[in-house]
Amino acid sequence: MSGHEPDTPTPAEIIPPLGDQELEALREVGRHWNAVVEPRVHRLRELPVDPSLKRASDGPRAGRFSRFTELTSFEPEGKDEVEATAAATTPVSQLGRLVEAVERVVIGPPLRSSAVVHERMRNLVALPVLGSDLFASVAYGPESMLAVLVLAGASGLRVSLPLAGVLVLLMLAVGASYRQTIAAYPSGAGSYIVAGDNLGERAGVTAAVGLLADYILNVAVSVATGIAAIASAIPSLRPYTVVLGLGMIALLLAGNLRGVREAGHLFAAPTYVFLFAMGLLICVGLEQQAGRGFAATPPPPIKPVEGLTVLLVLRAFASGSTSMTGIEAVANAVPAFKPPEWKNARTTMTWMIGILVAIFVGLMLLIHLDGIAWNPNQTVLSQLAHRSFGNGVTYGFIQAATAAMLLFAANTSYNGFPRLLFFMARSEHAPRPFLQMGDRLAFSNGIVVLTIAAAAIFAGFNGNLQALIPLFAVGVFVAVTLSQAGMVVHWWRNHGPHWHRAIAINGFGATLTAIVVTVAAVTKFTAGAWVVVLGIPLLVWLCLRVRAHYRVVHEALAVQPLPDTLTQPRGAAAKQAGYVPTPATGERQESPEHVQHLMLVAVERLDLANLRALAYAASLEQPLLALHLSPSDEEAERFRKEWDTWAVPLRLEIVVSPYRALVAPLAHYVDALQAQRPELTLTVILAELVVHHPWHRLLHSQVAPRLRLALRTRPNIVITTIPFHLPA
Amino acid sequence: MSGHEPDTPTPAEIIPPLGDQELEALREVGRHWNAVVEPRVHRLRELPVDPSLKRASDGPRAGRFSRFTELTSFEPEGKDEVEATAAATTPVSQLGRLVEAVERVVIGPPLRSSAVVHERMRNLVALPVLGSDLFASVAYGPESMLAVLVLAGASGLRVSLPLAGVLVLLMLAVGASYRQTIAAYPSGAGSYIVAGDNLGERAGVTAAVGLLADYILNVAVSVATGIAAIASAIPSLRPYTVVLGLGMIALLLAGNLRGVREAGHLFAAPTYVFLFAMGLLICVGLEQQAGRGFAATPPPPIKPVEGLTVLLVLRAFASGSTSMTGIEAVANAVPAFKPPEWKNARTTMTWMIGILVAIFVGLMLLIHLDGIAWNPNQTVLSQLAHRSFGNGVTYGFIQAATAAMLLFAANTSYNGFPRLLFFMARSEHAPRPFLQMGDRLAFSNGIVVLTIAAAAIFAGFNGNLQALIPLFAVGVFVAVTLSQAGMVVHWWRNHGPHWHRAIAINGFGATLTAIVVTVAAVTKFTAGAWVVVLGIPLLVWLCLRVRAHYRVVHEALAVQPLPDTLTQPRGAAAKQAGYVPTPATGERQESPEHVQHLMLVAVERLDLANLRALAYAASLEQPLLALHLSPSDEEAERFRKEWDTWAVPLRLEIVVSPYRALVAPLAHYVDALQAQRPELTLTVILAELVVHHPWHRLLHSQVAPRLRLALRTRPNIVITTIPFHLPA
Repeated sequence: MSGHEPDTPTPAEIIPPLGDQELEALREVGRHWNAVVEPRVHRLRELPVDPSLKRASDGPRAGRFSRFTELTSFEPEGKDEVEATAAATTPVSQLGRLVEAVERVVIGPPLRSSAVVHERMRNLVALPVLGSDLFASVAYGPESMLAVLVLAGASGLRVSLPLAGVLVLLMLAVGASYRQTIAAYPSGAGSYIVAGDNLGERAGVTAAVGLLADYILNVAVSVATGIAAIASAIPSLRPYTVVLGLGMIALLLAGNLRGVREAGHLFAAPTYVFLFAMGLLICVGLEQQAGRGFAATPPPPIKPVEGLTVLLVLRAFASGSTSMTGIEAVANAVPAFKPPEWKNARTTMTWMIGILVAIFVGLMLLIHLDGIAWNPNQTVLSQLAHRSFGNGVTYGFIQAATAAMLLFAANTSYNGFPRLLFFMARSEHAPRPFLQMGDRLAFSNGIVVLTIAAAAIFAGFNGNLQALIPLFAVGVFVAVTLSQAGMVVHWWRNHGPHWHRAIAINGFGATLTAIVVTVAAVTKFTAGAWVVVLGIPLLVWLCLRVRAHYRVVHEALAVQPLPDTLTQPRGAAAKQAGYVPTPATGERQESPEHVQHLMLVAVERLDLANLRALAYAASLEQPLLALHLSPSDEEAERFRKEWDTWAVPLRLEIVVSPYRALVAPLAHYVDALQAQRPELTLTVILAELVVHHPWHRLLHSQVAPRLRLALRTRPNIVITTIPFHLPA
Repeated sequence: MSGHEPDTPTPAEIIPPLGDQELEALREVGRHWNAVVEPRVHRLRELPVDPSLKRASDGPRAGRFSRFTELTSFEPEGKDEVEATAAATTPVSQLGRLVEAVERVVIGPPLRSSAVVHERMRNLVALPVLGSDLFASVAYGPESMLAVLVLAGASGLRVSLPLAGVLVLLMLAVGASYRQTIAAYPSGAGSYIVAGDNLGERAGVTAAVGLLADYILNVAVSVATGIAAIASAIPSLRPYTVVLGLGMIALLLAGNLRGVREAGHLFAAPTYVFLFAMGLLICVGLEQQAGRGFAATPPPPIKPVEGLTVLLVLRAFASGSTSMTGIEAVANAVPAFKPPEWKNARTTMTWMIGILVAIFVGLMLLIHLDGIAWNPNQTVLSQLAHRSFGNGVTYGFIQAATAAMLLFAANTSYNGFPRLLFFMARSEHAPRPFLQMGDRLAFSNGIVVLTIAAAAIFAGFNGNLQALIPLFAVGVFVAVTLSQAGMVVHWWRNHGPHWHRAIAINGFGATLTAIVVTVAAVTKFTAGAWVVVLGIPLLVWLCLRVRAHYRVVHEALAVQPLPDTLTQPRGAAAKQAGYVPTPATGERQESPEHVQHLMLVAVERLDLANLRALAYAASLEQPLLALHLSPSDEEAERFRKEWDTWAVPLRLEIVVSPYRALVAPLAHYVDALQAQRPELTLTVILAELVVHHPWHRLLHSQVAPRLRLALRTRPNIVITTIPFHLPA
């Protein structure tokens, strides 16, 4: 949480640069190296090849489709620097190339990092793009509220209007609160940053995790609602809800891996169409009602299954509050507005809240006047549309516009989730792989994780909207509450003009949303909210552990000046110290003369592959010990005879393994050698047969990977396999 | 198929010895090496450690439970040879140790190879041990025959006695045939060897594969019949057939991994108990029938669902022929008899056939006289026992003895299957891992494969005996037929005394069993035999491919004298030949001076881990090129500045990868370098962070394994990772 970070991901930020202290230490280490390297630098620098690949181009020309494409794929660009072209991104292995070919068809050719565009949006584009998630919420918010109220029968439905009033108050309060946040954080006012800056790391991470949960659930809920809208129009599709939903999610995955984000303004169209559809629905409905003198139709008689208790009303309120999910979108995206960014963002925010309130109020009024009750097979919007337009084309248009809107709303998660993970990874609260942009400059890893999580939740809850809603409200309101509470602290610390009023507005918003979180978490706990209530702290803990791990890594890897004991020869000293093995953190041989080699060649049989391994080892001209593992004394005798036939005066040690184990005795022997001289760097060299067909691997024992696994925790042990390629 | 191999597996036969030609070539190669190695041998031989670990014992004493158990686990045994004790078989990794601990509890401590005993059996032990499978067959053979005949109603059941007569003829003919085989192949008369020797490799492998199928099905069928015997007595267990059966198979797995084989004579008891039970059942039954004057009770009226066609009778015959599965056991085990082996084996064979025929005839007669029909919920043996003994203790004894017998019969597959795979692996028709004996001197790999196959088939057919039987007859009779046909050829080639009669006997047996194979394969094809009919050729093809692969390996690995071109310096010649990369088979650097090194150190960042990798590479004093992959020009510039701060005059090449790919451009760059000088040995050195907790691996990009995979097909490329251990 290092202050206001610029809110624009750069594809190149993968390797952390060195700090000043590290550079200083590096300079000192370099001086020490030079004393050692200088006398042999001629040998080290005289390369048998031309690393800039220029010499290569004098050879036979490499065509575009020849097997030497590799050569042309590096364009020399100045001294000691070449650039890999797109051709150099082709995987080298056969399987990899197959995967690559499929990828190219599905997501298109790779894009250069420089192709990243940081689009600036006009307000008329920003409104639909950033508002899509918020506006789409009216498709499930009122619906979910009624689904709870209907449990108390007709008398329950009568509470819907007052509840709607409370929700409008909430919308206005949160809107006002965010207007202030945007003005105060013009470089990006995401909850992660605002909460982290003002309330500390833990609060920031909690807000971020809450938003991550929100993004995941937004996909599941939007897709479920979208399918419900379609199934209301075409009931025969209802049994295929889960399959259709997973198909939609797969579509979103493919589209986003392609990088649809760049075509952001495309989102404007469906949102405006949806707003028009809602406007039409409300106006025509109200006009029809005006004809009847606004006399409310009583809802159909419904048998209540629960009493109209306070708890029921609170549950309905929590469900209804999902009508404003997506309200945080503008605050996250302030830098994407045209300058003056914060002013434009604030204006857009105001418009969004206004439109949301208008649609919400209009729909709730119509629902009340038309006497509409919740129906599991027909969405509330569909019922309203049927009332006003019958079964005709207009009805179809309303349903199609709604379904399209919801698909686009789900898509906003595909922008937000990976971006948030990127920022978390940059602050090291999330794994670094989330920093990486894929071939198409999309954060592929985040996109894939979102898809898996959303698909799992969608399928796990059978694509049932009313089962998903209880999970939804908690995450987003946790983030919104923390962001606003952070703003209260912000105003308190920086007594600006009108800071009293600012605190009042943000404090009011924070209090209201905190109440929503509590109500949602408590009343919906058993209905599914426990997944989120327990999941968020767990994920927060994980994120903090990730950060702690990276801190340990940085400390362990930071270059430091060599300690005095290492700048003097220390073989004798180490020997006197006895058999204490070098501790794992003590791998301090950063200078060539500290590396004392022992090459241990594991020889199974004196065949070409093993002779090659011996030749490799011997050519390095370091102390060399050949090691043979034999299952019995007789076999050992036989091998010694073969060795003597070879008659090369290398040292051979035979370990008889009467228990037939191979890897374990080898590992223990290496351990035993190292216990004698813990400061030695032991290179275990072994031949490895490389087979042509993967299934042939079953025909050979795979010693190298098992040995690598067995010895991986041991310090100062290097395992080198010398491949021997078998013909096909 | 190299002549008569001794039929006793030795645990040490894992590494194939060198042939005379290879030894000669080795001597010559050694002479060449010496010319090169001699001047540097001092450097190579001066080891910084004592490989015999003697010096180590002067250090702090290592206790049994101290962390230095490794030291005491090697007992010096003469010059340059140490022996790994049981302690040295303990896995080194944590996970490995956990697995090990479970293993010790389930299967016991490891056994030394020298603990292998080649038990010799007295005939009175051999009869029950080798006969268990054969005798147990009467529990399902008659049963399965009746299950087919009953389809034609009561008239179908009337055919059972004549059919039984034909089966007895078959038993006697095969018995006589095997008596001859045993005499002719005293060192082991398994079908694999007899068919292979006389009819060629293909026939031998086919016989072996047939037997393998037989062993697998024997487990499934015996367990199914055993459960049926138990469920006949306790009908409430019937719904749990599959679970109970899988439990039994798991028990067999654990028991055999423990190496129960050594307690072979334990098998004598249940077999004798079973024989006694059958004798009791038949005698009491016949005595009761004698009281009724042997007047056959007509079977209960059954509605026929099929006509009594020739096809039905043939199907019944094929099912009934499973009564003699296991007949080949004695022939496989001739060397296990006391001398004179072949005579004792032949006597035992005669007794076995005699007892089999007696029980079979007795049971069929009783079935006929008692008018017993097949019943899916009550085995035929259980019905007979109920008739004679009601529901009392004696009935329970008969059922228990039968169930126990069947479990032991299933167990015989656990001896035969892995042993046969061992012999196949020795002749290289099966993967070499089947040569290896596990900790308890059992062929663990074979045991595990058998368990998986049998469990899959048992569960796949729902543990239903009548569904499994159609698969059964084909495999074993294929092997028996090929073995006898092989004997015909054997007699034809070696005109011994009475060779005409010998040919007649073996020819008659072969003809009869060939008919059984044909009948079983054709009439049961759609009922399930297709699995075996199609599976056997597929497996035979695979075995032959395995053999072909190993042949290629031997040829590729065989030491040959160095070609002239390699004994002269050849860098210039190779360069003139242009950019043709060394073919995969051309990795002919078996002598140190042929290895021309280029160390390519991939440096991600100048931190301790990467400095250590650079130090390792530089300390080897070979040409060294540092390579950095950068996602953008700016990042490249930054890295170059850091490098310049270090100021060590090593060669650095930066590859800018604007498409953000990492492994592919690295692999292509290596390719491009190698294309310049195909004869170079390119060692790619890279730092690898070793994390403490496995889940931390998700937090770091795993370049090394991906690079290893990408470059594995390239010749002359060695990948070395220098581990850097992070603190916990």
